Amino acid sequence: MTQRRDQPRKFEDISKWQIETDVAIIGFGGAGACAAIEAADAGAEVVIFEVASASGGSTALSSAEIYMGGGGGTRVQRACGYQDSTEDMTHYLLAAQGDLGDEERIRLYCEGSLEHFDWMLARGVPYKDSEFKARAIVATTDDGLLYTGSEKAWPFRELAKPCPRGHNLEIEGDNGGPLFMKIMTEQVESRDVRIEYDARALCLISDDAGEVRGVVVRIDGEKVSVLARKGVILCAGGFVMNREMLATYAPETSQIATPIGNPFDDGTGIRMGEAAGGTLLHMNQCFLTIPYYPPSSLTFGILVNAQGQRFINEDVYHARIAAHIRKQVGESVYLIIGEKYWKEPNMLGGAIVATGETIEEVAEEAGLPVDNLSHTVQAYNEGAKKGVDPVFHKQADWLAPIESTFAAIDLTPGKHGNYVAFTLGGLWTRPTGEVRQMSGEPVPGLYAAGRNTCGLPRRAEGYASGLSVGDVTFFGRMAGRRAAHREGRG
Amino acid sequence: MTQRRDQPRKFEDISKWQIETDVAIIGFGGAGACAAIEAADAGAEVVIFEVASASGGSTALSSAEIYMGGGGGTRVQRACGYQDSTEDMTHYLLAAQGDLGDEERIRLYCEGSLEHFDWMLARGVPYKDSEFKARAIVATTDDGLLYTGSEKAWPFRELAKPCPRGHNLEIEGDNGGPLFMKIMTEQVESRDVRIEYDARALCLISDDAGEVRGVVVRIDGEKVSVLARKGVILCAGGFVMNREMLATYAPETSQIATPIGNPFDDGTGIRMGEAAGGTLLHMNQCFLTIPYYPPSSLTFGILVNAQGQRFINEDVYHARIAAHIRKQVGESVYLIIGEKYWKEPNMLGGAIVATGETIEEVAEEAGLPVDNLSHTVQAYNEGAKKGVDPVFHKQADWLAPIESTFAAIDLTPGKHGNYVAFTLGGLWTRPTGEVRQMSGEPVPGLYAAGRNTCGLPRRAEGYASGLSVGDVTFFGRMAGRRAAHREGRG
Repeated sequence: MTQRRDQPRKFEDISKWQIETDVAIIGFGGAGACAAIEAADAGAEVVIFEVASASGGSTALSSAEIYMGGGGGTRVQRACGYQDSTEDMTHYLLAAQGDLGDEERIRLYCEGSLEHFDWMLARGVPYKDSEFKARAIVATTDDGLLYTGSEKAWPFRELAKPCPRGHNLEIEGDNGGPLFMKIMTEQVESRDVRIEYDARALCLISDDAGEVRGVVVRIDGEKVSVLARKGVILCAGGFVMNREMLATYAPETSQIATPIGNPFDDGTGIRMGEAAGGTLLHMNQCFLTIPYYPPSSLTFGILVNAQGQRFINEDVYHARIAAHIRKQVGESVYLIIGEKYWKEPNMLGGAIVATGETIEEVAEEAGLPVDNLSHTVQAYNEGAKKGVDPVFHKQADWLAPIESTFAAIDLTPGKHGNYVAFTLGGLWTRPTGEVRQMSGEPVPGLYAAGRNTCGLPRRAEGYASGLSVGDVTFFGRMAGRRAAHREGRG
Repeated sequence: MTQRRDQPRKFEDISKWQIETDVAIIGFGGAGACAAIEAADAGAEVVIFEVASASGGSTALSSAEIYMGGGGGTRVQRACGYQDSTEDMTHYLLAAQGDLGDEERIRLYCEGSLEHFDWMLARGVPYKDSEFKARAIVATTDDGLLYTGSEKAWPFRELAKPCPRGHNLEIEGDNGGPLFMKIMTEQVESRDVRIEYDARALCLISDDAGEVRGVVVRIDGEKVSVLARKGVILCAGGFVMNREMLATYAPETSQIATPIGNPFDDGTGIRMGEAAGGTLLHMNQCFLTIPYYPPSSLTFGILVNAQGQRFINEDVYHARIAAHIRKQVGESVYLIIGEKYWKEPNMLGGAIVATGETIEEVAEEAGLPVDNLSHTVQAYNEGAKKGVDPVFHKQADWLAPIESTFAAIDLTPGKHGNYVAFTLGGLWTRPTGEVRQMSGEPVPGLYAAGRNTCGLPRRAEGYASGLSVGDVTFFGRMAGRRAAHREGRG
């Protein structure tokens, strides 16, 4: 009969354990590092298995911004003059995640956020008490704080008092990720944690009752049986690099977006966990974005669909824009902008499909309905002159009449090459990291965190930079503590 | 440790089998009936276990229209003057399902459709050689053929030659479902198939190698172990009646829609199959609709969002409209219509929020942007006078200027009560019914069909009436044949 890949090995069949520990952690990115630190600090014996030759994972490839705040504000927020409240932070995240939000997880995250910030400080993560004020994809300076979501944009500013919550490491350029993982790696190394690099996890080890008792790992070509007395924590990342999985679960994203992550975001951890009794949640959901700025001045433009109509306030976070682009009939999307605000260089790749002295010319050239586009621009300009956007409520800061020379920049998915994505679906877990069966009950002995799970950020529409690394580190820590405090067996 | 619900019992632990058969089928709705007939006709010993006291399932609650055609046309299509082609049918379904479509499944379905029609005839299912020509949710006459999707609407009419493919049973009123299941039940009863009613399936029985060997069923309060030498076929329906599951997997639907189905669409079969090694696919996807007609004259109206803009051609299938309503920012949706085309009775429940002699009055009263709504109606009317809809390409049949007295009917999800849904996600299977593990390989001995699976229709946006019963019966038959031809064990 067919060999069942990813299936757990039977505990009862294993006579010899090459490695024994309390907690085995699969993956040494942000989640694995935080889980290891907390598990070790709680007194557990810990071994990390990392498939690559070094720590880092996709956290090291990111900016490592962390979304933090609430409770009167972090040290950085307060120094920059912001008094954040836990209630505002919670309301914002609940609104941003919408129907897909996990309220329990969001509340825990917001209530624990100041402690998380202090924990980061105590681990040596440097944050400067200064604000980066530009609208940007990432901070390019060493400033410690910036707006990274849609807090100031409609409708969110009406639901919660805006406050910047993106915490950026004190380092010039977009170099937060490597620095963050360097610090976390040193933290792990300074503890009594064994680290096995070039160690590929193959499958879990479960007993007859379905409890996870260990993991099989390939090291130096040998299959090594690892006994994990307290549990295994899967921190092996998402699946955006697995083309087959992405096409199966997230076909709407796989066809248009370039994956971002590290090559080992191949779904290994998700598959292993599922085969051992865990179940999948929201596997279709991805972070998807079209970073159509910088320059931020492009925000003065308007986005229109194939009908020549606006469909979103252009001042929201870029992934929210991408999510709404995907909802348009016809899917064609253009940025319509006047010469004054269209400056080189931009990240768009310069796919200008039409320019003209009149908006009608541009519409004709771009193949957009002339009457609709003309009305859209005229109505927008009338409002902009008065500093209002009566229909989509873009902030006054980004309102100015669109004037000649007009240009249309093509952002159509599938035609425009800059759409990027990573996966947000994964194993269904409790906030504690316990991996859940479909019945909702935990798979005993199995934990997961980071993009191996369906975590805090669950849709592009409500994403903010810093939510993934925030989720990865916060719930990675929680999984480490929970596993360490479990009564050991074996 | 925690009891793991839905988990398979161990084959090796079972000493006594109360029932032995080749093929055990869970559920006696459309899928189970078709699977049983085909398995029995292939020479297998078959037992059906149905949790209710009678056959029927959700198929009996439906109209039991079946989407069929291609290959020059069914007898009914040809009699009505239509020469359908397999290519057009395939192209239509591929376009309608979009990125989510399973091309292999769609091609098999279209290529086998004429044979499926003939099989239905041979089983005694009556189809009259006449066409029901009204735009309707269901045929209310005994006519055999009607358009049930968006074939004639943009953009589909440009991608494939339109042809009606909804086949309606020869019976007055919306009574196809009971008649269809009566015929199928008689077909099953006329064969050597054992039927156990009031038999609740509890869990599958798997052996040490992961192969499904039987099922545990509760009959008369007793747990009965059923040996299935060739396999178990799960035909136990979807999960729309399980509020907890719906909120977990399809939160975007659960909050606004009334579930449609039978009370046993509670996910039992999906959970059992998943616990035995099957995996889940597209659990977020639902058939969701707002049947805003009849009267079909409401199609002369236009749908506008909170921005007072149109967003879809109003002549598409109602579930496509619901899918696009869900995509609008603000989510408020109104039907704007003139008195001439707004007739009682309608299915809307009469949620008229504004009427007026001018469109500006209506906009004010409904809280819609006056300038945008006014431009929308004016532009629409200009086109309608010429018989064109330059922006959304509604068919000329449904184009007429919207004139006073104007009315706005509120279709906003959450406010309007007529949204209904059933689930389209479920076990991941091969078209043969083989339930797949996450690795893609089958779980040996386990089959599934119908809404227990993620089948042919995978999104509301591309739905057509007759696709679900079409899927259920076509792939139910295939699963029955495949299981019957499997080499038996035990």
